[in-house]
Amino acid sequence: MPIYSAPLRDTRYVLDAILGLDRYSNLPGFESASPDMVEAVLTEGAKFCEEVLFPLNQIGDEEGCTRHADGSVTTPTGFKAAYDAFRDGGWPTLSGPTEFGGQGMPHVIHTAFEEYLISANMAFAMYNGLTMGATAAILAKGSDEQKALYAPRMIAGEWGGTMNLTEPHCGTDLGLIRTKAEPQADGTYAITGTKIFISSGEHDLTENIIHLVLAKVTGAPDNVKGISLFIVPKFMVDADGTLGARNGVSCGSIEEKMGIHGNATCVLNYDGATGFLVGEENKGLAAMFIMMNAARLGVGLQGLSVGEVAYQNAVQYAKDRRQGRALTGPKDLDQKADTLFVHPDVRRMLMESKACLEGARAFCLWGGLQVDLSHSAQSEEERQAAEDLITLLTPVIKGYVTDLGYDIATKSQQVYGGHGYIREWGMEQYVRDARIAMIYEGTNGVQAMDLVGRKLPMNGGRAAMALFALIGEEIGAAKANPETADFAARLEKALGELQAASMWLMQNGMANPENAGAAAYSYMTLMGIVSLGWMWLKMAQASSAALAAGTDDRAFHEAKQVTARFFAERILPDAGALRRKIETGAESMMALPVEAF
Amino acid sequence: MPIYSAPLRDTRYVLDAILGLDRYSNLPGFESASPDMVEAVLTEGAKFCEEVLFPLNQIGDEEGCTRHADGSVTTPTGFKAAYDAFRDGGWPTLSGPTEFGGQGMPHVIHTAFEEYLISANMAFAMYNGLTMGATAAILAKGSDEQKALYAPRMIAGEWGGTMNLTEPHCGTDLGLIRTKAEPQADGTYAITGTKIFISSGEHDLTENIIHLVLAKVTGAPDNVKGISLFIVPKFMVDADGTLGARNGVSCGSIEEKMGIHGNATCVLNYDGATGFLVGEENKGLAAMFIMMNAARLGVGLQGLSVGEVAYQNAVQYAKDRRQGRALTGPKDLDQKADTLFVHPDVRRMLMESKACLEGARAFCLWGGLQVDLSHSAQSEEERQAAEDLITLLTPVIKGYVTDLGYDIATKSQQVYGGHGYIREWGMEQYVRDARIAMIYEGTNGVQAMDLVGRKLPMNGGRAAMALFALIGEEIGAAKANPETADFAARLEKALGELQAASMWLMQNGMANPENAGAAAYSYMTLMGIVSLGWMWLKMAQASSAALAAGTDDRAFHEAKQVTARFFAERILPDAGALRRKIETGAESMMALPVEAF
Repeated sequence: MPIYSAPLRDTRYVLDAILGLDRYSNLPGFESASPDMVEAVLTEGAKFCEEVLFPLNQIGDEEGCTRHADGSVTTPTGFKAAYDAFRDGGWPTLSGPTEFGGQGMPHVIHTAFEEYLISANMAFAMYNGLTMGATAAILAKGSDEQKALYAPRMIAGEWGGTMNLTEPHCGTDLGLIRTKAEPQADGTYAITGTKIFISSGEHDLTENIIHLVLAKVTGAPDNVKGISLFIVPKFMVDADGTLGARNGVSCGSIEEKMGIHGNATCVLNYDGATGFLVGEENKGLAAMFIMMNAARLGVGLQGLSVGEVAYQNAVQYAKDRRQGRALTGPKDLDQKADTLFVHPDVRRMLMESKACLEGARAFCLWGGLQVDLSHSAQSEEERQAAEDLITLLTPVIKGYVTDLGYDIATKSQQVYGGHGYIREWGMEQYVRDARIAMIYEGTNGVQAMDLVGRKLPMNGGRAAMALFALIGEEIGAAKANPETADFAARLEKALGELQAASMWLMQNGMANPENAGAAAYSYMTLMGIVSLGWMWLKMAQASSAALAAGTDDRAFHEAKQVTARFFAERILPDAGALRRKIETGAESMMALPVEAF
Repeated sequence: MPIYSAPLRDTRYVLDAILGLDRYSNLPGFESASPDMVEAVLTEGAKFCEEVLFPLNQIGDEEGCTRHADGSVTTPTGFKAAYDAFRDGGWPTLSGPTEFGGQGMPHVIHTAFEEYLISANMAFAMYNGLTMGATAAILAKGSDEQKALYAPRMIAGEWGGTMNLTEPHCGTDLGLIRTKAEPQADGTYAITGTKIFISSGEHDLTENIIHLVLAKVTGAPDNVKGISLFIVPKFMVDADGTLGARNGVSCGSIEEKMGIHGNATCVLNYDGATGFLVGEENKGLAAMFIMMNAARLGVGLQGLSVGEVAYQNAVQYAKDRRQGRALTGPKDLDQKADTLFVHPDVRRMLMESKACLEGARAFCLWGGLQVDLSHSAQSEEERQAAEDLITLLTPVIKGYVTDLGYDIATKSQQVYGGHGYIREWGMEQYVRDARIAMIYEGTNGVQAMDLVGRKLPMNGGRAAMALFALIGEEIGAAKANPETADFAARLEKALGELQAASMWLMQNGMANPENAGAAAYSYMTLMGIVSLGWMWLKMAQASSAALAAGTDDRAFHEAKQVTARFFAERILPDAGALRRKIETGAESMMALPVEAF
């Protein structure tokens, strides 16, 4: 019953008119991303997501995954066949490096496709998502032999991958991990311990699973400085890739969760499993952060994706369902009631969703492009500038966009009234699925602390200052255009609040770090609002130009103008309130003794 | 594993120090509510909720209700025995009128107990909650015979009750209902139709269930003016209350829902069932609104209650769980990590929850007292004033407090990190349970429209002006006290935003009703914030006085002072942003053609 149609038109608009991909066609990777190729990838990708993966989304939620007595795990009905088609269609290889069998497409194109994948079936998308994260860590920190052995098969989707950080007593504070790695005579390590919340930890989709595991080598410091990273294959692997014996890792149970039931979230027991060190001993955390930063952008995208599919259904329901009459008088006189669309408060929920989703799409794709540019822009200066921006804004994409995703899923469910609360309509699944994105890969509170405590002050605030200058310049240009001047002025005000809040933080967060901690979440939200406002400024300008140039798609660009105005009127005003909250400091937040709660 | 402890201390504080119940001891009903009696009721009630009902909360969620082939429904394990104890303990009779076997306690005391009941087990509480709503309608609109026959048994909890409004094609727009009532020769009606989403619709807890059903009498206008209200007992009843034959109403299925699984939400099929008219033909909607207004206050309370139990667990977890170190340096040097409590962003979530919960508790109890005063205050003027205030603020208590409840449940879940997403910890159940309160008894969007379209303009804005004057007076008094002057000044600013927004609405909502519709939700939230701010003003004053008088419970009152300050600094600033949103009007919200979505 739920519907999903990939937003191809809007994706192309962002890629072409907002990010101007054609400007980068001389960069490595981009040469294969010709407009025709991008069109083909997105169109075929959309079709696959809509027709193959989306119909399995509710089944996956209802059935969940099954662990058998022998510890093996079966994914929901249809997942295996869909995964085979996904792999055989070459989808996992999309942005993998060509030297390991990938297609070498830019990350930004992969991001566009990944949005559709997650919208269609978030739990399914996570199987390959984790594989990509694990592959990234091997490519960044593995030996040449490890890369040659694992990367091609993981990029091809033949083998899966996982990330093993969390243990029962520790998640955020990885210094506390207890999993042990005992060096063996042959240079391998015997890994022993329990890891929990391992997404895609055990399943029937791939012939092997490559677990990346954080553990402490015997005698290493018992804190974050003693963490090492290991490859622990489910099946041992010969040098030529032939599968050997089962390794000493097994699925102890599948977690009963609020949502994403189609993904097997496992307790993994390591019992002297053979592990292969990745990089150097005690340098595991840095390697893990490579995975995590990529993964955080992917999780931010989950907010967009689940919000998008929930919103599309709410729009459909608001078109179909008739209830009450328009406040300005009946609209459809041949019917006993008008559609929900006539009611301003239903419009409010849909417009808030639309404005935030389109802003978030541009923001996520912009982020994907920065990843590409940080690797392959022509000058070191450009690479550094892109690296600065994406490093600064990764916690905002993760934290703010996943907050939006949950909020939009909740609003979309609300449009359905009582039917939204009933399982068969599918809306409550989106809320349950969207919820996890605010929690994993570092809770959104951890993102906020990362932003305020690490990203904002890095290099003396260089990245933030560059961002503010960039937005300020674009505001200046947009003020010269009467069509966008009002929007630009409103964004300028919000940017001013953000700059003032940043200044306050620099001064007061240094003096008392609790002021920074107390401000962090509001600051992340404020930066998210300004970032989306910036994207809307770009869209308002691009659509204004398109209309001035006599585009034949007036309706699309006029809708952008209206939605930009809505964003300015209904979302940007929160900036002032957030600044005021930030500037109150930590006193009343921290004053109470614990017994007072 | 989850915990719950009824907040007796805070309840007593609100009843005694904020509402000053002793001032009303001369009023009917209040004479039985002596401080000792209230203490006994709340203490025993708390014990029952904590020890009998709360342990069944997770079981109820996991098992849900079971419909058998014959249409009968079994509630989850333990519910029947708990209901028997609930009934035998006389709890359903608490605030029922004495002439029908009730204890005649004030509504405000019942509200205090009901908070605990819902916190302990929302799905269970709904069985009696619906009975009370149905009883209220019979008492208000039924004949003397109907009152005598049904009320005593329903008040005693021997028979249950339900409210039947929604049909598959209509919820909010009751004019569309299709259920038919055909007059019979004996003065009864044959009721035929399908009702959905019927809470407590069929179960094994009571020997009979009295359904109150909206239907259209043959030939009546096919709109809201043709709706009549009927009593349809599950088992026919003799004049002496003896149960007779099964009536033609049956449970077709139990809805699969997101939450409140312990309550049987039924599709009820009426197949020529015998119905007894309540009041006059075609006057059913007014009778239903009596039930609904009481029910809306009860639903608002659900927001408080579920938020409260979720928050209590988050506090406990933040005390137990150790992760990371305080920003100002390690706190517990004998441990490898500090508790979550040291982290400002965890504090933020807990303080926001605490500030809103304590404010909402005062607001809900204040609302309960207005219900009492509207019936039994000494002068007509006082009764009218109370009636005005509670009529105005019922949609705010329902809409704003249930929004808070969901938000607090979500934040409390967030404190748990990954564990919050796992079923066994119980936190995700609170989120799923809290969600429905924003939807049923009129979605929160409908509440917002009720506030702006009906309640605000009623009697030329008399109620709103009285409210603003009342708050303004208290602000004036509090400004004279140096301890509360700062809070009062901040609340004055927020009240100013509300008054300006109200003025804007009066002027622009008349000119274009879509301006009112577009502003409605922000306006409801703004009024909610100011209302909670008003309660915090009362608490700041009361605790300031207690401290000045040398109370021996300094810690409690000092916590109130800090929490009031937190509310002023972190919640009140939203008032300005909400006003700005309201004053932008409907244009950008309504401008897009439907095809643009």
